[in-house]
Amino acid sequence: MNIVILGSGNIATHLGRAFKMAGQHISQVWSRDISHASALADTLAAEPIDNMFDLDRSADLFIIAVKDEAIRELALDLKLSDQLLVHTAGSTGLSALEGASTRIGVFYPLQTFSKIKSVEFRQIPIIIEANSPEVLASIRAIADRLSEKVIELSSEQRKTLHVAAVFACNFTNHLFGLAQELLEEKGLDYELLKPLIQETLNKIKMNDPVSVQTGPAIREDQATINAHLQLLKDNPDLSELYTKLSQSIVNLHKRSQG
Amino acid sequence: MNIVILGSGNIATHLGRAFKMAGQHISQVWSRDISHASALADTLAAEPIDNMFDLDRSADLFIIAVKDEAIRELALDLKLSDQLLVHTAGSTGLSALEGASTRIGVFYPLQTFSKIKSVEFRQIPIIIEANSPEVLASIRAIADRLSEKVIELSSEQRKTLHVAAVFACNFTNHLFGLAQELLEEKGLDYELLKPLIQETLNKIKMNDPVSVQTGPAIREDQATINAHLQLLKDNPDLSELYTKLSQSIVNLHKRSQG
Repeated sequence: MNIVILGSGNIATHLGRAFKMAGQHISQVWSRDISHASALADTLAAEPIDNMFDLDRSADLFIIAVKDEAIRELALDLKLSDQLLVHTAGSTGLSALEGASTRIGVFYPLQTFSKIKSVEFRQIPIIIEANSPEVLASIRAIADRLSEKVIELSSEQRKTLHVAAVFACNFTNHLFGLAQELLEEKGLDYELLKPLIQETLNKIKMNDPVSVQTGPAIREDQATINAHLQLLKDNPDLSELYTKLSQSIVNLHKRSQG
Repeated sequence: MNIVILGSGNIATHLGRAFKMAGQHISQVWSRDISHASALADTLAAEPIDNMFDLDRSADLFIIAVKDEAIRELALDLKLSDQLLVHTAGSTGLSALEGASTRIGVFYPLQTFSKIKSVEFRQIPIIIEANSPEVLASIRAIADRLSEKVIELSSEQRKTLHVAAVFACNFTNHLFGLAQELLEEKGLDYELLKPLIQETLNKIKMNDPVSVQTGPAIREDQATINAHLQLLKDNPDLSELYTKLSQSIVNLHKRSQG
């Protein structure tokens, strides 16, 4: 199978590697910036391009992996007819590709990608969608080569999954970052938190998060909450987040009881 | 060594078990509610008490593991003189024990404890503090029996560590809970997120969280952010948290660049 990748960011990079490792041929990597296209294309033995005149329209699959707001314009710029065209975005509807080809779909790997770390693709859920059963079958066959978990969802369901992923992944990573900053400002070693972070994750492997919630908010331990807010008083960002998250813990607990 | 545990919650339970497994004798478990005292005492072959008249004042170590605001009053109620007395709270100063004994300290295990899950104590950092070098040495000797990581910090440093732990552990667990709620409301399987959550943790084992931050906020992908806020519009709690956390990601990124 010949594949063209449009984009050169984290998702483009990891998908390119995964397809390459699954024995597929990446024929081209497009980016608006040729140096970005080259950087990725070189690792995939592909041709870098920055111009739609050079696009290999005979490829079997075109994968758009760019910022959500750039998807529709790029798709139309490709000037395809009936080639298989997918985007990889969690929160953009299939409709963004309408009119760009007669065979369109979505190929959304539910994972957090950083260029500096590779991932084991077989365990990553790939969420798929298509504009016909025939196209869906084609996309499923392609996804099956990369992952054991291929799931069809509607655009609306996929969007909900993406929001949930932002809470469970992007926002949690940020909280780790805030914790690190707090400690380092006081000359304390962030490594101290590692066993705690590991155990936080271990606990939710077998239990619902709501049932294993701990900390001052769920205990309604106002003395501790006040001591913490006092300590954060020079950082309005952190003290506001502390207050909102503590209140949200109490609210979620009530909802789960009710 | 004979130990009296004051309290019957998560920390009392896990510390009791850890001391028991390290070959120490738990002589009594006190709780205001005798049924709570009994529930824990039975598992430790200890005597349950709910009355300070029955307190075994000949014990070698008294561990207060109750809500922060109850520590001081309970400590004074013990009517000790020079017995070794510690509390286990992250955000309460050593000073809360002043006047309750001449030998006072803090014994704070930095971990999240749930009654339903046991933990490997050897890897848990135990943060200690004392009112004299002699008392500190005694507490360190005791802590060394339970953990490989025994660290002396001041009350102020310990409080900072506790706030950081709330962000890195309690708040992240809550975000997992919010993600689960979001998915289940739409009939989606929370299990889908597990590989993503695992990878979020894997990434920060070897990298600073700030350097591996992903998601729409750090990309300043306003189209995705708007789509997510639209989806959360009926839940003011979640949409407000989404906005604050996204802004905080941008702010932390700027601070780390500056």
